[in-house]
Amino acid sequence: METIMCSGFKAAGVASGLKKNGEKDLGLIFSTVPANVAGLFTRNKIQAAPVLLDKKRIKSGVCQAVIVNSGNANCCTGDQGMRDAAAMAKFASSGLGISEDLVLAASTGVIGEPLPVEKIEAAIPSLVKALKPEGISDFAEAIMTTDTVPKVAFRQGKLDGKTFTITGVAKGAGMIRPDMATMLCFVCTDINADPDLLKDVLYIAAEQSFNRITIDGDTSTNDTLLIMANGLSGAVVKNRTDKNLFQGILNDLLIGLAKEMVRDGEGATKLVEIVVKGALSNEDARKVADTVANSNLVKTALFGEDANWGRILAAAGRAKVPVEPDKVDIFFNDVLMVKAGMGCGKTAEAEAAKVLKVPEFTILIDLNIGNGYASVFTCDFSIDYVRINADYRS
Amino acid sequence: METIMCSGFKAAGVASGLKKNGEKDLGLIFSTVPANVAGLFTRNKIQAAPVLLDKKRIKSGVCQAVIVNSGNANCCTGDQGMRDAAAMAKFASSGLGISEDLVLAASTGVIGEPLPVEKIEAAIPSLVKALKPEGISDFAEAIMTTDTVPKVAFRQGKLDGKTFTITGVAKGAGMIRPDMATMLCFVCTDINADPDLLKDVLYIAAEQSFNRITIDGDTSTNDTLLIMANGLSGAVVKNRTDKNLFQGILNDLLIGLAKEMVRDGEGATKLVEIVVKGALSNEDARKVADTVANSNLVKTALFGEDANWGRILAAAGRAKVPVEPDKVDIFFNDVLMVKAGMGCGKTAEAEAAKVLKVPEFTILIDLNIGNGYASVFTCDFSIDYVRINADYRS
Repeated sequence: METIMCSGFKAAGVASGLKKNGEKDLGLIFSTVPANVAGLFTRNKIQAAPVLLDKKRIKSGVCQAVIVNSGNANCCTGDQGMRDAAAMAKFASSGLGISEDLVLAASTGVIGEPLPVEKIEAAIPSLVKALKPEGISDFAEAIMTTDTVPKVAFRQGKLDGKTFTITGVAKGAGMIRPDMATMLCFVCTDINADPDLLKDVLYIAAEQSFNRITIDGDTSTNDTLLIMANGLSGAVVKNRTDKNLFQGILNDLLIGLAKEMVRDGEGATKLVEIVVKGALSNEDARKVADTVANSNLVKTALFGEDANWGRILAAAGRAKVPVEPDKVDIFFNDVLMVKAGMGCGKTAEAEAAKVLKVPEFTILIDLNIGNGYASVFTCDFSIDYVRINADYRS
Repeated sequence: METIMCSGFKAAGVASGLKKNGEKDLGLIFSTVPANVAGLFTRNKIQAAPVLLDKKRIKSGVCQAVIVNSGNANCCTGDQGMRDAAAMAKFASSGLGISEDLVLAASTGVIGEPLPVEKIEAAIPSLVKALKPEGISDFAEAIMTTDTVPKVAFRQGKLDGKTFTITGVAKGAGMIRPDMATMLCFVCTDINADPDLLKDVLYIAAEQSFNRITIDGDTSTNDTLLIMANGLSGAVVKNRTDKNLFQGILNDLLIGLAKEMVRDGEGATKLVEIVVKGALSNEDARKVADTVANSNLVKTALFGEDANWGRILAAAGRAKVPVEPDKVDIFFNDVLMVKAGMGCGKTAEAEAAKVLKVPEFTILIDLNIGNGYASVFTCDFSIDYVRINADYRS
């Protein structure tokens, strides 16, 4: 399926030499007209220089381009890092012939090494020259680190007979967990919506998508989620109904990208939805879902295709919310594995074993003490996760 | 070094057939006279049958024997599980010719399978017959699951010229984290101390030891820490000075056993102390230490012998306590790696690389904003951890 880029947006990705292996490492998204913009950033106390830069610039609500590099996070790089983040934005603005204030920046890669901005400067002419609507797939490649596949998706909707498009591109296969946005996600749309509204819908869509996924429980210093809306489709968000329609489509797009991320989690072989119902509150349900989704023992059992429901129950039991052991039911897809806190025996185990062999399934934990509900996505924890992360810097 | 068993205590360990591989799986500790007893148990909401049994029985403050099996956790086993836990204690009391109420029980192993008590019953005669002071090493073997080495230690002290001995035995190489006791630890002593005092000192010693270690962030449904004091040394805890002396020796013993556990963590190749100082409070320091100690990205980097301080800083930044990025210093032993939030360059990296090659070292994180201090022990996260836990039930 070809990705459709929304009207007035172009993108590109080139190799600037930041990645040692010569792969694409520098990306640019450009709107032919200034776009309204909103963003969400990491809640980590340690924040990379481009995050600090963007948080300042995004207050204007307007943006026309985003420049992104992989191979270096420009984080924990002090004042020099701040100058380097501003410099990469400046290079892009010069190349594009637009105001420096209209450019945002993002970086991903190793923390604590100075950003070789001269490589970025040298690559700007070829980067700008490569800009085209279908360049979004090159951009997607350029922002990859340990991702194994580029992640691009689009959705379309209609307002007053006018079709608008939302195109999203993301990277991130580790260091993702609830209460963070993704590693990096850039959303372009040709809808017409003001920055405050964009921020509202972006926040809700992030809660529904990136804040529901976990790969390894770690969070990043660089996480950035941006949405740019240039209005060129002519579709205008005028009222609550329009907003809801836009919200629904954006949710759907970001949930799709979030699931792509988990599917491509470092070393992951399974995408598992953890659903918790019957908790005393939605907050309690979420705590149980997160604890199960982040449990290394659960995740290694998923890798081993072992229906080890004891570990699921044990993880639920340490979530620090009310759980009554003898009321808990657990399903693997539609297979009842645990009834009232006790295993359902060998037949259920055999059926569950079949579920565990498929690449995507749901584990439902029903606490049966209330109406609280939550759902998160996780992946298994494999030998390759350790391999990837033990060797990352070498 | 031979372990000295304290006066009046005997122990034994035999193979009853609970472990499929024919290894020792049933252990017994017996005091020739009833002993004062105190215990700490898992805070997990899901608690195994023997834990529920012990929590009831320990209220009497007296105990004469503990029977422990490995190979089956007797957890999530419903009413039958409760009957089985009582049965294994009953079998021991019959074999020993003592009251059933004076026997505590513990189990460790797979969750959710019925305990084959007939195997335990059949093994009781040989178990009782094998009781002897030096049997504590057989006991230590009998309670092992994924442990690779038995863990026994002893310490001695003097009160009023009378020497008392504390002998501790433990197991547990996964599912350990702060806010839990260890998997299983049994402490015998011939000191004379009442149950309330025992509980006080046990709580403090656990905070100093088992509650400061983490292997994989998971906690168990079966964790049990018991101390039995039979008074046969003649040394009596009479006042605060005596109590402090006893406390210090018990702390030292349990810290030693806790470090043994981390050293033997599933797949672990490194024992690393994470020290946090300069936080706004001790609680804040502890949160940062725990977050770093439990970070999979930090732990895989330790496995890879990679001085990836960016991951340490990123983990500190998500601990949800005040951290000022440009004030943080990080040391690997005495090598300053990060000064005021920035890396100290290639020479420091090379020095730190040497530290990472040794099996035990300290990472000191100085937040430089207050006087809060905490220290925890962790291990690295290896390919073998995943292998062990993906295959555990098969």
